[in-house]
Amino acid sequence: MPEATPAQRIAQFATEFRLAEVPEAVRLRAKLHILDGLGLGLASTVQTYGRSAVEGVTAMGGTGDCSVIGHRARLAPRDAALVNAILIHGLDFDDTHLASIIHPTCTSLPVALALGETLGASGKDLLAAFLAGAETGIRIGLAVDGGFHHVGYHATGVVSHFASAVTAGRLLGLSPEQITAAQGITGSTASGIQVFLEEGAWTKRFHPGWGAVAGITAAYLARSGFKGPTRPYEGKFGLFDTHLHGEATKLAPLSDDLGQVWHFGETALKPYPVCHFIHGCADAAIDLHAEIGSAKIVKVDAFLAQPTLHIIAEPAEAKERPTTDYEAKFSAQFVVAYCLLRGRFGLPDLLPEALADAEVRDLALRVKCHEDPDTAFPTFFSGGVTVTLDDGRVLNRHVRVNSGAGERAMDAGAVADKFLASASLAIPATQAERIRDAVLALEEVTAAELMALLRAE
Amino acid sequence: MPEATPAQRIAQFATEFRLAEVPEAVRLRAKLHILDGLGLGLASTVQTYGRSAVEGVTAMGGTGDCSVIGHRARLAPRDAALVNAILIHGLDFDDTHLASIIHPTCTSLPVALALGETLGASGKDLLAAFLAGAETGIRIGLAVDGGFHHVGYHATGVVSHFASAVTAGRLLGLSPEQITAAQGITGSTASGIQVFLEEGAWTKRFHPGWGAVAGITAAYLARSGFKGPTRPYEGKFGLFDTHLHGEATKLAPLSDDLGQVWHFGETALKPYPVCHFIHGCADAAIDLHAEIGSAKIVKVDAFLAQPTLHIIAEPAEAKERPTTDYEAKFSAQFVVAYCLLRGRFGLPDLLPEALADAEVRDLALRVKCHEDPDTAFPTFFSGGVTVTLDDGRVLNRHVRVNSGAGERAMDAGAVADKFLASASLAIPATQAERIRDAVLALEEVTAAELMALLRAE
Repeated sequence: MPEATPAQRIAQFATEFRLAEVPEAVRLRAKLHILDGLGLGLASTVQTYGRSAVEGVTAMGGTGDCSVIGHRARLAPRDAALVNAILIHGLDFDDTHLASIIHPTCTSLPVALALGETLGASGKDLLAAFLAGAETGIRIGLAVDGGFHHVGYHATGVVSHFASAVTAGRLLGLSPEQITAAQGITGSTASGIQVFLEEGAWTKRFHPGWGAVAGITAAYLARSGFKGPTRPYEGKFGLFDTHLHGEATKLAPLSDDLGQVWHFGETALKPYPVCHFIHGCADAAIDLHAEIGSAKIVKVDAFLAQPTLHIIAEPAEAKERPTTDYEAKFSAQFVVAYCLLRGRFGLPDLLPEALADAEVRDLALRVKCHEDPDTAFPTFFSGGVTVTLDDGRVLNRHVRVNSGAGERAMDAGAVADKFLASASLAIPATQAERIRDAVLALEEVTAAELMALLRAE
Repeated sequence: MPEATPAQRIAQFATEFRLAEVPEAVRLRAKLHILDGLGLGLASTVQTYGRSAVEGVTAMGGTGDCSVIGHRARLAPRDAALVNAILIHGLDFDDTHLASIIHPTCTSLPVALALGETLGASGKDLLAAFLAGAETGIRIGLAVDGGFHHVGYHATGVVSHFASAVTAGRLLGLSPEQITAAQGITGSTASGIQVFLEEGAWTKRFHPGWGAVAGITAAYLARSGFKGPTRPYEGKFGLFDTHLHGEATKLAPLSDDLGQVWHFGETALKPYPVCHFIHGCADAAIDLHAEIGSAKIVKVDAFLAQPTLHIIAEPAEAKERPTTDYEAKFSAQFVVAYCLLRGRFGLPDLLPEALADAEVRDLALRVKCHEDPDTAFPTFFSGGVTVTLDDGRVLNRHVRVNSGAGERAMDAGAVADKFLASASLAIPATQAERIRDAVLALEEVTAAELMALLRAE
């Protein structure tokens, strides 16, 4: 017997582990990340790209039995997976596994939802398939050490093909040989280039969904005996050879300790839909909001890590006056003003009405950004805010460990709050609460029951 | 106005040209290549990979309104395109544009057939869309000068995404802006790596079909306003940047003289399903077949270009005894013996019964291969055969320009014969003749009428 290839080891892992063997903390995080992803999916339904995706895919594919997040339309499994993935990833506010630079949930959840629903899977099966795929995607990212990004590939797009194939394979009950072949086939589909960057095109939003379509296709072909290579990652003219331009890769993280170590558990959730560098200041400003009370703000000084100032605070002239949601996300002046006045910063706060908020826009002009002498950057995205009020008070707050990072990782309550805020853009609160409850009790519901809750009422 | 990007120029071309403006010779070649592709598609239906593809895709996608070559099943457009592409390209006996190293027909025909059928297109529309896509694929291949192969990509796989997007865009009646976006979106799907080589996996067969699925998806998304980049080829982190590992490309062939010069017209068809290097000897042996009559062959000497001997004649021990169809394709001894005894070499002659033909296998042991002192290699794949018969005669034939090359390009009659031979593996002769007649009069039939003929009766 030749030594098992990484794809064979991943396939073995994906077929063998039982959900009960996954540490409870990892299972809980998985449910929280699913909840987060579904909230973002709902929020995207009111965005132009979300509407375009639903319209285009529906026109192409006709109807089916799978639910689309926040819509009445029912699509075929691949089409539902494609649209749901665009919705989940489209806001770029989904989870990140930092070391692998992968957004794990969108690489696996769309397939788990669509195939789970059409195959009549239990919530437990859905959860296990989701974890198998997400962990696979992270492992590939760890093996290449940022390599995909360096040469112009969108890493999440590339790995989503394999993650989706593994998720599909687990739900379809494929054998290890078949899941190996599915990874082999999807080695031929792995794609997603970053040419969108210069033109603000929407293709990044499309990548994980395309991986979902590919993963499902590969799994079905493998099931019917279509022969795929067993070395799609490390073989000659395999993924690492073709997609990395000769950069070194380390094979060990790809398949070592599978089932023992769940890197998925390290994945971070973003509390605010703004640049990570502004998170400490946003924390501080939200904290000060209540204390300000009815007093009027005369002046604001914000303190941020010096190396980040040119990205999120300069040139001040432009940063004080964002014109799009994307510019607002990268403006410390706008975000701090918004947090001070409204006491929050969620997705609704990037909608056109919020961006046009005259009081916030006026205050943003009076937020001055400075170097933070007490920053813990780059370990944490620290930030400080000093507010001078018309009643003579001067309030100060400095946040060393930004929320969402380190020991301040978002807990279940914070994730649920983020979910409800995201979902509120698209559906009634009662429906959102039912979804939240179903996801947090995912072991007790079926995939179809969950998806029924996610459809538009 | 900034200068148009190559994708924009291709989109302009694809929407603007009228079929009547295409030179008649090119239109005729297009019909012949379509005929050839359909014959190969029919022949693949009896192959294992063909059966697996139909089974897997049907299980995944359910039914639809598009015909599958040689099958009763009707599938959704993308699924029919995927399966038909696997059938057309699967035998690796389809056409080749030598300078671009692209198999053009399989990059475009599957989408033209499926969307043509579902959209109710005329044969003229199908033909125009086919030519638009095939020409696009060739242009991309010309621009990269073999670069995809050098770094481990399967060039036909990569370009099929763009070719299919353009074909789909033309049939859907998209605007130039939308066809530009479709190319931009499919820049994010372009894929197909050669890792299959070492393991004999089937993924190469899958590549153009996957490009068809991607091209259709991209076209529908573009139609609904999904934003794609306008520089998918030459932009930063575009196709040439990401997929060529820094190898030089020349942009001019990508879009210069579009609509004026049809590189498609240069595309070659292969008369025999064997290695190109054996073609001259096969010609000579077939020519000798009649002359041999009822005499028994004592000895055969075959003469081939010296640099090719190690590929198709050595080691003699193995080459004289092929065990699979793939080994037979690369055995001069087997092919020459077969041609001398049977007077032909077509696809049926690679089936298990033919490979087991005792008389041929016995003669193959007595075919000795030598260097051809009169070869025109590498311009032509010349070859000679000398046969010693039991009646004392010694027959000689030397072929300088192998059939299919140069002035001996396959003409309409030869293509029709090849088609009928390919089709005969799967369908009755009367059905094959009706298909042939319909394709040669494609301007007079609808896509749906053609596809109805191609279904299993």
